[in-house]
Amino acid sequence: MNIDKEQIVDNNKQLLSEHQSNIDFLSSKLANKGLDVDEIICRIEDFQVAIPSWALGAGGTRFGRFSIGGEPGSLEEKIEDIGVIHALTRTAGAVSLHIPWDIPSDINAIKELASLHSIAFDAVNSNTFQDQVGQAYSYKYGSLCNVHQQSRDLAIQHNLDVIKLGDQLGSKALTVWLADGASFPGQNNFRKALHNTQDSLQQIYSAIPDDWKLLIEYKPYEPNFYSTVIQDWGTSLMLAEGCGEKAHTLVDLGHHLPNTNIEQIVSTLLTKGRLGGFHFNDSKYGDDDLTCGSIKPYQLFLIFNELVWGMDQNDAGNPPLSWMIDASHNVKDPIEDLMQSLEAINMAYAQALLVDQKALAHAQADSDVSLCQEILQEAYRTDVRPLLTAARIKAGGAIDPIGIYRELGVRQNLIKQRGQNTVATGL
Amino acid sequence: MNIDKEQIVDNNKQLLSEHQSNIDFLSSKLANKGLDVDEIICRIEDFQVAIPSWALGAGGTRFGRFSIGGEPGSLEEKIEDIGVIHALTRTAGAVSLHIPWDIPSDINAIKELASLHSIAFDAVNSNTFQDQVGQAYSYKYGSLCNVHQQSRDLAIQHNLDVIKLGDQLGSKALTVWLADGASFPGQNNFRKALHNTQDSLQQIYSAIPDDWKLLIEYKPYEPNFYSTVIQDWGTSLMLAEGCGEKAHTLVDLGHHLPNTNIEQIVSTLLTKGRLGGFHFNDSKYGDDDLTCGSIKPYQLFLIFNELVWGMDQNDAGNPPLSWMIDASHNVKDPIEDLMQSLEAINMAYAQALLVDQKALAHAQADSDVSLCQEILQEAYRTDVRPLLTAARIKAGGAIDPIGIYRELGVRQNLIKQRGQNTVATGL
Amino acid sequence: MNIDKEQIVDNNKQLLSEHQSNIDFLSSKLANKGLDVDEIICRIEDFQVAIPSWALGAGGTRFGRFSIGGEPGSLEEKIEDIGVIHALTRTAGAVSLHIPWDIPSDINAIKELASLHSIAFDAVNSNTFQDQVGQAYSYKYGSLCNVHQQSRDLAIQHNLDVIKLGDQLGSKALTVWLADGASFPGQNNFRKALHNTQDSLQQIYSAIPDDWKLLIEYKPYEPNFYSTVIQDWGTSLMLAEGCGEKAHTLVDLGHHLPNTNIEQIVSTLLTKGRLGGFHFNDSKYGDDDLTCGSIKPYQLFLIFNELVWGMDQNDAGNPPLSWMIDASHNVKDPIEDLMQSLEAINMAYAQALLVDQKALAHAQADSDVSLCQEILQEAYRTDVRPLLTAARIKAGGAIDPIGIYRELGVRQNLIKQRGQNTVATGL
Amino acid sequence: MNIDKEQIVDNNKQLLSEHQSNIDFLSSKLANKGLDVDEIICRIEDFQVAIPSWALGAGGTRFGRFSIGGEPGSLEEKIEDIGVIHALTRTAGAVSLHIPWDIPSDINAIKELASLHSIAFDAVNSNTFQDQVGQAYSYKYGSLCNVHQQSRDLAIQHNLDVIKLGDQLGSKALTVWLADGASFPGQNNFRKALHNTQDSLQQIYSAIPDDWKLLIEYKPYEPNFYSTVIQDWGTSLMLAEGCGEKAHTLVDLGHHLPNTNIEQIVSTLLTKGRLGGFHFNDSKYGDDDLTCGSIKPYQLFLIFNELVWGMDQNDAGNPPLSWMIDASHNVKDPIEDLMQSLEAINMAYAQALLVDQKALAHAQADSDVSLCQEILQEAYRTDVRPLLTAARIKAGGAIDPIGIYRELGVRQNLIKQRGQNTVATGL
Repeated sequence: MNIDKEQIVDNNKQLLSEHQSNIDFLSSKLANKGLDVDEIICRIEDFQVAIPSWALGAGGTRFGRFSIGGEPGSLEEKIEDIGVIHALTRTAGAVSLHIPWDIPSDINAIKELASLHSIAFDAVNSNTFQDQVGQAYSYKYGSLCNVHQQSRDLAIQHNLDVIKLGDQLGSKALTVWLADGASFPGQNNFRKALHNTQDSLQQIYSAIPDDWKLLIEYKPYEPNFYSTVIQDWGTSLMLAEGCGEKAHTLVDLGHHLPNTNIEQIVSTLLTKGRLGGFHFNDSKYGDDDLTCGSIKPYQLFLIFNELVWGMDQNDAGNPPLSWMIDASHNVKDPIEDLMQSLEAINMAYAQALLVDQKALAHAQADSDVSLCQEILQEAYRTDVRPLLTAARIKAGGAIDPIGIYRELGVRQNLIKQRGQNTVATGL
Repeated sequence: MNIDKEQIVDNNKQLLSEHQSNIDFLSSKLANKGLDVDEIICRIEDFQVAIPSWALGAGGTRFGRFSIGGEPGSLEEKIEDIGVIHALTRTAGAVSLHIPWDIPSDINAIKELASLHSIAFDAVNSNTFQDQVGQAYSYKYGSLCNVHQQSRDLAIQHNLDVIKLGDQLGSKALTVWLADGASFPGQNNFRKALHNTQDSLQQIYSAIPDDWKLLIEYKPYEPNFYSTVIQDWGTSLMLAEGCGEKAHTLVDLGHHLPNTNIEQIVSTLLTKGRLGGFHFNDSKYGDDDLTCGSIKPYQLFLIFNELVWGMDQNDAGNPPLSWMIDASHNVKDPIEDLMQSLEAINMAYAQALLVDQKALAHAQADSDVSLCQEILQEAYRTDVRPLLTAARIKAGGAIDPIGIYRELGVRQNLIKQRGQNTVATGL
Repeated sequence: MNIDKEQIVDNNKQLLSEHQSNIDFLSSKLANKGLDVDEIICRIEDFQVAIPSWALGAGGTRFGRFSIGGEPGSLEEKIEDIGVIHALTRTAGAVSLHIPWDIPSDINAIKELASLHSIAFDAVNSNTFQDQVGQAYSYKYGSLCNVHQQSRDLAIQHNLDVIKLGDQLGSKALTVWLADGASFPGQNNFRKALHNTQDSLQQIYSAIPDDWKLLIEYKPYEPNFYSTVIQDWGTSLMLAEGCGEKAHTLVDLGHHLPNTNIEQIVSTLLTKGRLGGFHFNDSKYGDDDLTCGSIKPYQLFLIFNELVWGMDQNDAGNPPLSWMIDASHNVKDPIEDLMQSLEAINMAYAQALLVDQKALAHAQADSDVSLCQEILQEAYRTDVRPLLTAARIKAGGAIDPIGIYRELGVRQNLIKQRGQNTVATGL
Repeated sequence: MNIDKEQIVDNNKQLLSEHQSNIDFLSSKLANKGLDVDEIICRIEDFQVAIPSWALGAGGTRFGRFSIGGEPGSLEEKIEDIGVIHALTRTAGAVSLHIPWDIPSDINAIKELASLHSIAFDAVNSNTFQDQVGQAYSYKYGSLCNVHQQSRDLAIQHNLDVIKLGDQLGSKALTVWLADGASFPGQNNFRKALHNTQDSLQQIYSAIPDDWKLLIEYKPYEPNFYSTVIQDWGTSLMLAEGCGEKAHTLVDLGHHLPNTNIEQIVSTLLTKGRLGGFHFNDSKYGDDDLTCGSIKPYQLFLIFNELVWGMDQNDAGNPPLSWMIDASHNVKDPIEDLMQSLEAINMAYAQALLVDQKALAHAQADSDVSLCQEILQEAYRTDVRPLLTAARIKAGGAIDPIGIYRELGVRQNLIKQRGQNTVATGL
């Protein structure tokens, strides 16, 4: 289902005067502080986050799954759904494919469709945590770390295939997330598992094109519940350094032990020039994959504060980052949920752009801790939503994306088209 | 597949002399300390743990599932598998059914089959965390707590049906585990959700037969990732007290926040006479559902220490407890895994029986903390396996249950009979 | 050091026009939504939080303590410091004494001094976690739970003394926080410890005046590292119910295991009419005692959302709550830090007052989870600081409390008066 | 107070026959499995763990401290206390000094005293987490990471002094634990703090003698409660690699976030040849500093399993490790507590020596997860205490160290000599 630009313009008309009053008020306040509001709006407008192809359907837990209705049954339909999101928000201009769930039958056709929606192909994701029907060697006991070379070789070859496919689509990165690990003490020899993983990654790395990144995720637990081969950023960084300059660490916000200071990890990786990308979501307990900003919005701001400052400094030559939402949608319409995530991410980004970095540096030099806090909170407590709206309007998006989405009855139309009890391909 | 008693006797013969030497040595040591070894062996022999009907197949995570081969395809086959476990260990003399996964087509036939394997019907479990095909009102947003009375009524009726079925089978308890909760702040009104849950439980309670228990589980998170209506023992106890004297709290070892002191909860519930039962498993991170004793065996011992002492005192009139294993089997043969769990549970029980409670009480009265620790560790560090073996032999079980299970090629036979890519009914 | 009202008025003058523009803009927006802005400002103005007498000096950790300079050396000086805070913020109109650290030598004089600063005497706190010099029986192994009656009696008598003192001062509540617990398995008999604690609390309760509350805190760990007798809200509630109607549970935000859903606990206690009070602080790891709102401001809002709604409903007859800040000040000037805490608490309160409860109830009734989230976030994302400023101005406080505090050089003056290396009485 | 060897011999006599029966039984069982019992006993006998000089007095928490009586008031008395421990256990043949708490007034005299007790000088520890009286620049806002060069220089110079002192005593390692971090977001610029720390460590490293190790500890939080500069092993390793080959990571078991898989970290560091040492303790919640093996003995075994296998392989040229107990003693006699820790450490070591590594490697190669678990548990469940006793007897120690310690009334004698309300120098 396509959103007509006219529909957006019409809907915006009713909300424009209120927005204008909001942005005028905020702009004047920010300008008084010496901030360049236009530049901030431009940076927000430029900020694009990829939507993973698996996020458009209802997720589920090991206890079951409840259908949402109108879920996309093909890659084409997934791209159309992202098209809706991007048309309304103008911040979701990329898709991140998950292979083998989303192998296009016709490369050119899919590229054309994506282009029609102004959607680029971001990082491609390999999957070696599930066996495919008829698979010769299983990943049950690991893929890149497996004690059996046949399983390892299969997993390596799969990654090579994904690179090839991504290359045809215009992707510039491969994301490797490994479920590899152990559920019981003794199951794995830690050193052999680490060694095998490093060796496998090096083989994959050797096929990474020169203008690509290899992104290595880490995660402390799940689906293995005793140990995970790449359990933390330290292990991921070690493996990336063992591959070469194009290999980087990818941070998924949900992949940390309780209470981890993630913003410090982000800063450290930027210091090493090895932060490759982000998977955005939020969580209260584990890898809960909730809507970004729904649980810990201040933490999201603190992370963006490191990102903005770190990338502006960038003395270690960190490459541009790959941004992706990686959430699961069990009780909300995925399209609405993704738009809520995009809004929260952009808010955190905008708040971070408001931080008075010079004043902060002075306060830090004076060990004036109260003032340091005040400076961060001043930025965070500002209601930056008018800036986001301004950026959306500028880019042709909607003032109220969820409002128009509901007004147009998009989900009801999708259900009419696709049915009530559909199951999105993939997970 | 039935295990022939002769096979067990034959296999035991080869191992008997070594066992005799072990038990003689241990008995003499324990007798010197004034312990009644025969009584301890009797208590171990009497201790029976139920196997849930869903535990005989391969589990899985939200990321996928790997088949184990030879999984039971019917309730009959599940009971046969428990029969194997019980024949070998003599400690698994009960099955705990999960409805609607395991509704027997012929009540009498299934009772006869179970009786053939000396298996009783322990607590029956209702399931209102999944929608069944064609269900009129969904549990997507909760069952007993749902804002819509139709969904609540459906869930209540399901529990009434389960009670009726259990009654026909000879069960004496209903276990209610609710997934009810919210994945996002604001989704639920906590007070209304709690009120609805209490009201629904009271309706269920009113159908609980006089010689039954209603067991109310608690869990902090999963499958909802912001809040769970019955998030902790305090909430469960409050609801149980709101129902009546036959309502009790059920403790699942995996249903706690990080670092929770579970043994203290056990003690408190016994003090109130409201501890109804146990779901045994082990975990490192969350509700990992790993083999009992595979991660924190000392904690398991400390819990049993409270149970043994608490039930021996029992001034609050706590009813006898329902014991069940509740683990998931992703990378191990479920039958082997369950036998490992049973061994670990029995070890913890036996160690707890060795604790010198009199000396401990004295040391506590003297605030002699070092000595308190020594007394517990003395019991825990004792190698109690010969006591378990002695109890098994006495009851007609195997000296080495896993050894004989492998020697007889049970799993291979099951695969031959049932196929390689079977999926157990249920989850 | 007294803050002259004229100084505040003068300072406000420079900031008034900017504030006026802010509050006009916000008022108009809120009025458009049908909110009664004046009433909201009144409610904020009425909201008062007690400052504990021990919070005016530098705290410390077990690894050491760094002096802040100008710390108060007497109860009089502590009240003067709170006077400064209250003069500037008009939201700290009460002090919470800690006995025996702050026993006044002259009751009437101290009441007069407090009255001069418009400061009331909120809940009094007993201390049975430290031995006082020459104490006949030690609390080393517990106070109200101690196996030795002499230690218990001493602790009970201390609480009775504290009640008597509080009564003379005009306090209306006794807060009991117990360090009682065990650092090693076996050290305590859980049941006896619980029984002794209940018995001791009942003796204390019998001396609680009719118009008082007995507030029972809970905490999972520290300073005992294996178990704490009152480890969670469930235990506290059980003990409160065991005492009588005037006994209530007190929630300290830092006293929870990782990831606890505190707002749900708040809601449950309100449902039971047993929420007695709050100790505000923030934390990332444990009982970190950081400035309120410095780590998890959204959680603070969610808690206030429950409080506002719960107290407005109040069908269970919950008494008015005792509010207190309970933070430690290791690296910031305590007076600045406390003013930052007050601001954060008031922000959360104001945001909660903005929640459209009717719309939320409708969205919940529709299971419209996206909308529920939008409604909460709409309130939270609003920059409510102008409302707080308006309330402060109305009450005679400062537009910019920290700004004027620094401009007037309050800390430097205190150092001049009191010295650089002072140590506040108490901890 | 010296323990006379004759006293030990006498006491042992009464217990010898029981021990002989135990060790005979166990030896025969182990020999049947092909294990070389004498070699195992020798390895246990050789294993020595250092006692830190601050561990002989009562510790405390931020809430207070309870004296134990007879605490050592000088370095000489501390060494005498370690002498008692070593005489009885023969496994505590080293002391680890904490500077400036334990600067010897007479180097030769202290060496002589230590030598008299067969005690070597293990790693020396610097302290830059507290200011000393009259210190020119404060560590309040950090030491090696401080924004002010004067504070950094002071901290660097202190470390150089500690190296010099350690060199005179015969130490071969410097342990650096930094409290450096931030209690509030914004307080530190993460990158500058990391850069300063690296730079400071390099300056310290340049003074490390060729046959020394520089040991860099990590810790996620406390005494700073938002961030710690060296928050995890990854950061420590990065800093060590930034220094040079003599720099290594030191693991303190209590310095991890909840649920961390520590044994995997140990394995990874061994793989890199960068594991420098261990601080042993146990914990349930945070850095609880409890007696080793009192909470998670199975985890301790799993760690030793990695250590034994890793050091036997040692293809990465990891240096010999520095072992130290780092526990705090709040409710137990420190000497008894340390002996309990030593026993638990040695048990874990002995159990690890029993693991059938060949069988385990086979089971791992077969992905036979049940068997892997059985192999580890077979070793862990063995009651290895007779092996420890045998090693102690061989080395001249006591069969029952705590028993004889109590029989001889050592603590009472110390109280008589040193007084009841002593406070050990240092913390």
